[in-house]
Amino acid sequence: MVQVGLVMGSISDWPTMKQTAALLTSLGISYERRVISAHRMPATLQLYGEQALERDLQVIIAGAGGAAHLPGMLAANTLLPVIGVPIQSRALQGMDSLLSIVQMPGGVPVATMAIGSAGAKNAALMAAQILGLQDTTIQTAVQNFRQQQRREAEESEQRF
Amino acid sequence: MVQVGLVMGSISDWPTMKQTAALLTSLGISYERRVISAHRMPATLQLYGEQALERDLQVIIAGAGGAAHLPGMLAANTLLPVIGVPIQSRALQGMDSLLSIVQMPGGVPVATMAIGSAGAKNAALMAAQILGLQDTTIQTAVQNFRQQQRREAEESEQRF
Amino acid sequence: MVQVGLVMGSISDWPTMKQTAALLTSLGISYERRVISAHRMPATLQLYGEQALERDLQVIIAGAGGAAHLPGMLAANTLLPVIGVPIQSRALQGMDSLLSIVQMPGGVPVATMAIGSAGAKNAALMAAQILGLQDTTIQTAVQNFRQQQRREAEESEQRF
Amino acid sequence: MVQVGLVMGSISDWPTMKQTAALLTSLGISYERRVISAHRMPATLQLYGEQALERDLQVIIAGAGGAAHLPGMLAANTLLPVIGVPIQSRALQGMDSLLSIVQMPGGVPVATMAIGSAGAKNAALMAAQILGLQDTTIQTAVQNFRQQQRREAEESEQRF
Amino acid sequence: MVQVGLVMGSISDWPTMKQTAALLTSLGISYERRVISAHRMPATLQLYGEQALERDLQVIIAGAGGAAHLPGMLAANTLLPVIGVPIQSRALQGMDSLLSIVQMPGGVPVATMAIGSAGAKNAALMAAQILGLQDTTIQTAVQNFRQQQRREAEESEQRF
Amino acid sequence: MVQVGLVMGSISDWPTMKQTAALLTSLGISYERRVISAHRMPATLQLYGEQALERDLQVIIAGAGGAAHLPGMLAANTLLPVIGVPIQSRALQGMDSLLSIVQMPGGVPVATMAIGSAGAKNAALMAAQILGLQDTTIQTAVQNFRQQQRREAEESEQRF
Amino acid sequence: MVQVGLVMGSISDWPTMKQTAALLTSLGISYERRVISAHRMPATLQLYGEQALERDLQVIIAGAGGAAHLPGMLAANTLLPVIGVPIQSRALQGMDSLLSIVQMPGGVPVATMAIGSAGAKNAALMAAQILGLQDTTIQTAVQNFRQQQRREAEESEQRF
Amino acid sequence: MVQVGLVMGSISDWPTMKQTAALLTSLGISYERRVISAHRMPATLQLYGEQALERDLQVIIAGAGGAAHLPGMLAANTLLPVIGVPIQSRALQGMDSLLSIVQMPGGVPVATMAIGSAGAKNAALMAAQILGLQDTTIQTAVQNFRQQQRREAEESEQRF
Repeated sequence: MVQVGLVMGSISDWPTMKQTAALLTSLGISYERRVISAHRMPATLQLYGEQALERDLQVIIAGAGGAAHLPGMLAANTLLPVIGVPIQSRALQGMDSLLSIVQMPGGVPVATMAIGSAGAKNAALMAAQILGLQDTTIQTAVQNFRQQQRREAEESEQRF
Repeated sequence: MVQVGLVMGSISDWPTMKQTAALLTSLGISYERRVISAHRMPATLQLYGEQALERDLQVIIAGAGGAAHLPGMLAANTLLPVIGVPIQSRALQGMDSLLSIVQMPGGVPVATMAIGSAGAKNAALMAAQILGLQDTTIQTAVQNFRQQQRREAEESEQRF
Repeated sequence: MVQVGLVMGSISDWPTMKQTAALLTSLGISYERRVISAHRMPATLQLYGEQALERDLQVIIAGAGGAAHLPGMLAANTLLPVIGVPIQSRALQGMDSLLSIVQMPGGVPVATMAIGSAGAKNAALMAAQILGLQDTTIQTAVQNFRQQQRREAEESEQRF
Repeated sequence: MVQVGLVMGSISDWPTMKQTAALLTSLGISYERRVISAHRMPATLQLYGEQALERDLQVIIAGAGGAAHLPGMLAANTLLPVIGVPIQSRALQGMDSLLSIVQMPGGVPVATMAIGSAGAKNAALMAAQILGLQDTTIQTAVQNFRQQQRREAEESEQRF
Repeated sequence: MVQVGLVMGSISDWPTMKQTAALLTSLGISYERRVISAHRMPATLQLYGEQALERDLQVIIAGAGGAAHLPGMLAANTLLPVIGVPIQSRALQGMDSLLSIVQMPGGVPVATMAIGSAGAKNAALMAAQILGLQDTTIQTAVQNFRQQQRREAEESEQRF
Repeated sequence: MVQVGLVMGSISDWPTMKQTAALLTSLGISYERRVISAHRMPATLQLYGEQALERDLQVIIAGAGGAAHLPGMLAANTLLPVIGVPIQSRALQGMDSLLSIVQMPGGVPVATMAIGSAGAKNAALMAAQILGLQDTTIQTAVQNFRQQQRREAEESEQRF
Repeated sequence: MVQVGLVMGSISDWPTMKQTAALLTSLGISYERRVISAHRMPATLQLYGEQALERDLQVIIAGAGGAAHLPGMLAANTLLPVIGVPIQSRALQGMDSLLSIVQMPGGVPVATMAIGSAGAKNAALMAAQILGLQDTTIQTAVQNFRQQQRREAEESEQRF
Repeated sequence: MVQVGLVMGSISDWPTMKQTAALLTSLGISYERRVISAHRMPATLQLYGEQALERDLQVIIAGAGGAAHLPGMLAANTLLPVIGVPIQSRALQGMDSLLSIVQMPGGVPVATMAIGSAGAKNAALMAAQILGLQDTTIQTAVQNFRQQQRREAEESEQRF
């Protein structure tokens, strides 16, 4: 059963979004990977959003850059929580991506993460924290991830 | 026959977009006025975009604020030229609206105007300049508008 | 049973955050309201975060402005999903609040909403969409809210 | 017959603007290529704008960077639609170019595209969408371009 | 004999630019006041620039807002020093005006002042400092102005 | 006796913060070096802040990037002066780090330095200037450092 | 004996800086109040900086707006710690003040506070925390201030 | 006789400012080159400003980066026109330099140029345009430079 729909606006977003994919896997979460350009494939986008709930997806993660409409338009078409990852763009370094995703009008939220790699990783963790409310295995996986992180931070200090 | 589709994301955009409407009228251009929220009425948005060409519209003008997805998503669904007007938002004063509209990825352009009132007026003029390529009456109307503008600027100097 | 912890950094954030509260109520979600200043009450903050899971809260919503540390520090202390609302600040109009909340490092996500009122409303909806994964009554309430929104948008067009 | 005037402020803008040129050609649109510096050749700029209409050009595309005055000053001198491409500048990465082009006062519009390469490509498409209103061959070429884009996006997903 | 050409893009810039006028007068500098919209009266702008030198003007001061092309285009048409005043714009508060004026390409400088009132006053002083190189009366007037300013600052401290 | 606590949010901040360390040493100031992630080790952070005074530390220097909460949260937990160094971040180049550190609410100050290397060096000097109020040896070391800087600047002119 | 030099660039900064003065007084810290414009009274500024140490001042607090040179130039002329308060400016709302104060080059630090009122209050607290290193009465006053703040925050929650 | 004082804040500004030097030379203008750090050599800065007029300098050009105080502080100490060049800084790419130089308070103007190389070249031209008011040889040199620029732009078009 697929739990998370991992969608990106372009295959060029994969170097960022594969960090989401890797972390989802290591947290024991199943996902499907899709490339759906909001502007090139708007009907596919709409269909994907509309069917996500009945297909028993739990969370959608969407990464996009520039005038990034993918996360918001998916959110407009589903009742599932949508997590948005602003891809670091070339000229404006992701400030355009960030504002296009986070500044959603009242009524249709997108749970926005940090620009770039940090946001890609955190999208997986946020999905896991949401799924963990119903699934203690995932919650424990997040807890273990956190403890490992802390240990690594502590050890990095000792290895100085 | 309706020449221009004048679309806004919310009725709260009307104080800005009515300046577009007034100028279209004074330039002799017919338009229809629609409120289509990209996030609340995504299916309506898509249908409107898809049918615009066969309905013989010539130009779409779309005003929206914040994470403004309306102009770009209309552009994704039509072959007509789409003109975008960034509405001045509250917190970020339209910088979010501007970047969400102008920073479209390669493949789907939106002809972006200035933030707020100046942009709303210019959207009507840009539509008129496009329509004027086929319709000398409209081109003459733009020319007259320009000459009147110049006269007013010149007279303002004399009344100093 | 309290489902959502609604925390703000200062009582001066209430005019914004009461919109979250009102929407939570109208969606049938129970919440507790807390004022916990990250900088004035750091020990309280930490305790609140650490105990949230065992107290059976499901989601934390945190609003803060300026160098807004509350959402991120709560997120650092809990495995629950934390939703951040950037309060519109005076000098920089919430850009400081937004960046302080959204730019979290990899490892500890905050689900960031828009600056100000829109974000406050959307925090309630995002919480509802998360809770709705386990509770069809809440999911239906969100669906009804969405349909009402769409009807209002459509009617606003007709009343033009 | 030349349909589009492709003007740039400096030969150093060519690496960006040649993407416009290539796409115009592939869409079957004829163009002339000019280097006209607004600040070094202001009289040439004015003459070019003034004569564009009588020379039966249909659309002007102008790329410029920094304090980019070329698109706006061409627009001030012609009734043709002018499309502006903000070149990515060195220090401010095109934010100066963008604001200098898009923030035109009410009365003289410039149809502004995204900063850099995406904007350069989209300028060609916007010109084609405008010309396509009168020329179904061009409109079909745009449609084919769009379909090819969509196919490429879809195939990129399958090749993953 | 007129020493300074004081040009503004619109009569709406006068509340700012009249501070330049007042200070020029109090420093004993003659000026002429012109409203020349770069976009509505481009031929007038060019002529004004071209003739300024032979008309024995010494300095041009130009105030403009938004995509402010007036100072740069005057500079492109004259060998006289041009001083630019960025008018505080509505949406972006003069950041667009500032970048459109200051970010001139190599080859055509504009001496840019601060946004708004401070810049308007300083334009008069900069003109006076330039004219003062040849005219000790004006240089003395600037010196007196500076001393008066210092006295006022010192007295303001004592009146505390 | 350790005088300064030099804390960073991640070992990846060390290339910046080691410049603080080197300058502290050359000014004759003892320090301890810690890696304490605000988000991964919040309890450690709180304890460190709470115990700093009784451990007879005099000043805390904290470097962090992105949504940089470390300096502010340390400041919230101690009465010692806390100096914050905004690390240059990847996407937003330290603007996020700067605003997250400097825009502290009234009640809990962080003495914020410049972004990156300059700030890292200056943190050491600010600590020295604070310690120099009680310790003329350190004050003299700062004075010598300043004189050497001035000599180097003067000599750099002569070597031109 | 005066402990703190409270300097502002203009008497118009007093509505902000009087909050520093009031808090210094309530913490039992003596100060002298000066208006020294960096640009109108540069010799006074330099003298003030040079003599501050021998006059037995301990800390300088400097508030200034726009191209705010006062804090940095005082810092250049003294070995005392200098605390900078960016005054909220009109057009750019203090972003110019902030960057002009905080982005000091390596070698001469200014301890920068938040823009406006919050920064003005925090300047007094930072001065108190520095002075508190040698004076337990002041350190206790800061501690009491902090406790009162926390109590007020806690009570504000109960009065909800 | 030295006509222009070319001052920079650090020898690291030379790669930018040598473009000013080269262009001054090619325009037949004599200059002296100084490295005067506003923060490391404040007394030298003040003296340089105070003596510039009596030393018969005509114009001062000052380049500086970050919290760039050199141009403004020189302007505060002289009645000569001061031209400021914002050096492109590392983290904020010269936006800090620009605002620190251009946003001068009413009373003390700095004629601000573009960030980086373009500004460095333009500083030489602005100096030449000022000096050209009294010296037709220099004015002719500027005219020749302009004509050569135009020819180069025109030829670049032909070599396409």
